[in-house]
Amino acid sequence: MGDLVLYGNHESGHSYKVRLFLTLAGVSHRYVWVDLDVPREARPEEFRRVSQFGEVPVLVAGGVPQAQSNAILLRLARETGKLGPPPGSSWEQLTTWLFWEANRIGFSMANLRWYRRGFEPAPPGALAWIESRALADMARLEQELSERAWLAGETPSIADVSASAYVFLAPEAGLDPARWPAVQAWLDRIRALPGWVEQSRLMAR
Amino acid sequence: MGDLVLYGNHESGHSYKVRLFLTLAGVSHRYVWVDLDVPREARPEEFRRVSQFGEVPVLVAGGVPQAQSNAILLRLARETGKLGPPPGSSWEQLTTWLFWEANRIGFSMANLRWYRRGFEPAPPGALAWIESRALADMARLEQELSERAWLAGETPSIADVSASAYVFLAPEAGLDPARWPAVQAWLDRIRALPGWVEQSRLMAR
Repeated sequence: MGDLVLYGNHESGHSYKVRLFLTLAGVSHRYVWVDLDVPREARPEEFRRVSQFGEVPVLVAGGVPQAQSNAILLRLARETGKLGPPPGSSWEQLTTWLFWEANRIGFSMANLRWYRRGFEPAPPGALAWIESRALADMARLEQELSERAWLAGETPSIADVSASAYVFLAPEAGLDPARWPAVQAWLDRIRALPGWVEQSRLMAR
Repeated sequence: MGDLVLYGNHESGHSYKVRLFLTLAGVSHRYVWVDLDVPREARPEEFRRVSQFGEVPVLVAGGVPQAQSNAILLRLARETGKLGPPPGSSWEQLTTWLFWEANRIGFSMANLRWYRRGFEPAPPGALAWIESRALADMARLEQELSERAWLAGETPSIADVSASAYVFLAPEAGLDPARWPAVQAWLDRIRALPGWVEQSRLMAR
């Protein structure tokens, strides 16, 4: 893949997914913290050149930039052979989980936390709806994780790295993880992985 | 890939993406219409056995089921060699676009249309927020499609099949596509692809 440069921010769970993968997999890389308080058009030239969506994360591999955290995770897992499909699972299953995350928990919990943290004023009425989506997605995870230790099977994979990022932030979204015991036990298993580092520390400036 | 069986419904833009791919690519398959008005636990045994999320679409390929429309599109494009990356683009870029769709237009427009069509009562206050997301996503597409004919480059790909499915339904979401001329011209180009069939006809029972 060549030299790796990751652009991210300490408040971005989507950025955290990517750097957590690189850390757990022991892949050396350069991390560039991007100040998201600066308007898009005023962000550093180096970042604007590689950022297709003006957003973090972006991973530049051998000079080629890629956006969207889950797309990056798929590529990294395939190319490094780390955190791929558990025995009996497949790349197709992992891909399915990553798209579930993008459409569900990585939307619902991410937005709920965004407004509950006060990054923007909450749109009147919308918050209850967003919360109902987050609760449905947590219930889904609770059901899955009551059946096995990791989302795709018996070993951790990029499905777990992806789906857990915003679940770790549930308290910032006003939700108590203790309501979902199987999810909480899963977060504990992720925390216990060798090399695991929490988001605010891993993604600091 | 072996025998292909697609489970879908005429109201599901996510299902439509997959059958439109199969149709454009000339891939033979069996289509099974699933009655979504029947509660999940009462749906046919054949469907419940293969449906990881209780949702459509599901594609069963050689006996192995897969959920999530964009995950299915990625697999089909890779295995058939059809509607893959345009010259100068890459699988990584297509994957990035598919994750954008899952997190953006395939969420915002899909939900806006769901409530505007009256499939469920609209949650008070949430509709304005969902619409603001759909408008932002349409603006993004308008900008991209002002620069080139197809999302990933000079030829159509699964990025276009995926991102257009819910854009075709914009009128049902209460939005007039004429507000976005580059998007409208892109929809016309998709309609002109050999073998293209509109959703309600392609996905009928």
